[in-house]
Amino acid sequence: MDKTDMTTTSEGGNGSDFCVPVYSSSEVLEKLRGNCNYGNKQPYPAMYSSIIGGITLDPALMVIPIDDHMVHRGHGVFDTAMLVDGYLYELDTHLDRFLRSASKAKIGSPFPRSTLRTILVQLAAASQCKKGSLRYWLSAGPGDFLLSPAGCPTPAFYAVVIDDDFSQCKEGVKVVTSTIPMKSPQFATMKNVNYLPNVLSIMEAEEKGASASIWIDDQGYIAEGPNVNVAFISQEKELLLPLFDKILSGCTAKRLLALAPKLVEQGILKSVKTCDITLEEAKNSAEMMYVGSGLPILPIITWDEQPVGDGKVGELTLALSNLLWEDMVAGPETQRLRVAYM
Amino acid sequence: MDKTDMTTTSEGGNGSDFCVPVYSSSEVLEKLRGNCNYGNKQPYPAMYSSIIGGITLDPALMVIPIDDHMVHRGHGVFDTAMLVDGYLYELDTHLDRFLRSASKAKIGSPFPRSTLRTILVQLAAASQCKKGSLRYWLSAGPGDFLLSPAGCPTPAFYAVVIDDDFSQCKEGVKVVTSTIPMKSPQFATMKNVNYLPNVLSIMEAEEKGASASIWIDDQGYIAEGPNVNVAFISQEKELLLPLFDKILSGCTAKRLLALAPKLVEQGILKSVKTCDITLEEAKNSAEMMYVGSGLPILPIITWDEQPVGDGKVGELTLALSNLLWEDMVAGPETQRLRVAYM
Repeated sequence: MDKTDMTTTSEGGNGSDFCVPVYSSSEVLEKLRGNCNYGNKQPYPAMYSSIIGGITLDPALMVIPIDDHMVHRGHGVFDTAMLVDGYLYELDTHLDRFLRSASKAKIGSPFPRSTLRTILVQLAAASQCKKGSLRYWLSAGPGDFLLSPAGCPTPAFYAVVIDDDFSQCKEGVKVVTSTIPMKSPQFATMKNVNYLPNVLSIMEAEEKGASASIWIDDQGYIAEGPNVNVAFISQEKELLLPLFDKILSGCTAKRLLALAPKLVEQGILKSVKTCDITLEEAKNSAEMMYVGSGLPILPIITWDEQPVGDGKVGELTLALSNLLWEDMVAGPETQRLRVAYM
Repeated sequence: MDKTDMTTTSEGGNGSDFCVPVYSSSEVLEKLRGNCNYGNKQPYPAMYSSIIGGITLDPALMVIPIDDHMVHRGHGVFDTAMLVDGYLYELDTHLDRFLRSASKAKIGSPFPRSTLRTILVQLAAASQCKKGSLRYWLSAGPGDFLLSPAGCPTPAFYAVVIDDDFSQCKEGVKVVTSTIPMKSPQFATMKNVNYLPNVLSIMEAEEKGASASIWIDDQGYIAEGPNVNVAFISQEKELLLPLFDKILSGCTAKRLLALAPKLVEQGILKSVKTCDITLEEAKNSAEMMYVGSGLPILPIITWDEQPVGDGKVGELTLALSNLLWEDMVAGPETQRLRVAYM
């Protein structure tokens, strides 16, 4: 490559003692391939991209154009679905929320819902993966690098299968109250890729030796974790979840609300409700947990260095965890879609 | 591909009457290439990616891994620099802000500042582009798809050259007050890719027949445009810009503040200052403009359907525009770095 005249800069140390290589297309591919030495186990066995109109099993080509507005403007939404023993769990619920998010973010779709769904199921089949998750995105698509998506002719759809041998979480974790500002309700209620506040919130928790964090809203009510909902068992054995008006409407949280009345019938829980929960009420709760599709329940035993309840994993938390886990692995066929692998 | 059993779903219309193709690696490349028929003029003549450790001139390979945390979590920051007649304008100022943004977003760099700078200058040279802009990103990098970047071993650096035959903006535009919630100061003051509020704000403006929008902060003071600063000329011929404590510290706005005192010396302007500007003060101003690196000044003649001042492009706005334009095309060598093309 050429040399560059750095003498006109006011800065010292021009660093021009090295040349940045310009690679041929085949060299670029070779370099991309060199970054994908996963050994026997490919963590992302398959990807779909509407840019290519099909599925690739080549990890080096699981890419997105740099000019896609999701990459450089965060103009994209996403959702997920767990893959449990060859079944997709609650795909339709997640797909409905996905399209609601896209609508709120003013993102179209290159295909109707039924096509998106078929692609996801066929992607799962092509991946041969029996346990893990599907993650998928709708984006304003590639175009110019301007702020407005007016120069993006076609929205894009991407999806990957993530191999993950997850299991029911039975160990309790530590959490802290987040000091990172929450997103406004308009943005917190749609699942878009603008997750920098969420990232900084979990990084803050990790720096404090905790697993994750809890957001409190500007009125002093409990909001959510950085990518999961939070639920409480009061001293009166009520299952309490925050209202979904300022936070993401969690698919697993909603499923929990649908299933938990079974424990009320059995006399194990007193009641199940969503309501405004003050920080004080929350801190006085007997049990506390995260709720999210990949967990499905994660017991919380320490919050801001103080024990939650007696500081042990709660019995009702485990009962709720069992209820959801059972639904995931052996629930009704309305919730679970069998993937027809080859 | 295989057929998929969709009979277990509660939904009708399973859409499984088509098969999603699984492409070989060479077919994927062919498809990517098919999307890049730009004819004679490639809009993005060159890209650097630390993933490949070099530059590519192949538009089909100007890509980013789907598992990069900038793509799916917005954990990335960016900045820009204009390329004017073969010179990079204010590269060092932008690079300083870039690294401040990265630090605030807790993103490291794969290289020291001097190396990033050398890469950018050599990328510009390799692109052969004389007029346009450089856009560059630091990202938490590829890793797992989890929220925390703990599984991302190395941050990534990407840069593209965008060919653009821009010229001085002399026509006035219409703007509207944005109804989209602003980002909190912590996030508005770092240039990260979480631009969905900005995107929705400019889309709202475009839907109303305007070019862009103006944010008012929660205290009723003028904030900024969706990706540019805003400035006013008062009836007393003062140049007024909002304080940078809750908004992005614009490099071009700061350069304007450094250059505008010349017009005070000449008796054309009365004074130059940054201060809190109420909506009422702003609406009573004589002239109004956007300030941003790609403009550098864009006169605003209509705001919320009302004329700004006399509704014509202001004389002082044009004088400031000329001042900045002159600095871009023929300013001192401390501001401009000559690219040594081959």
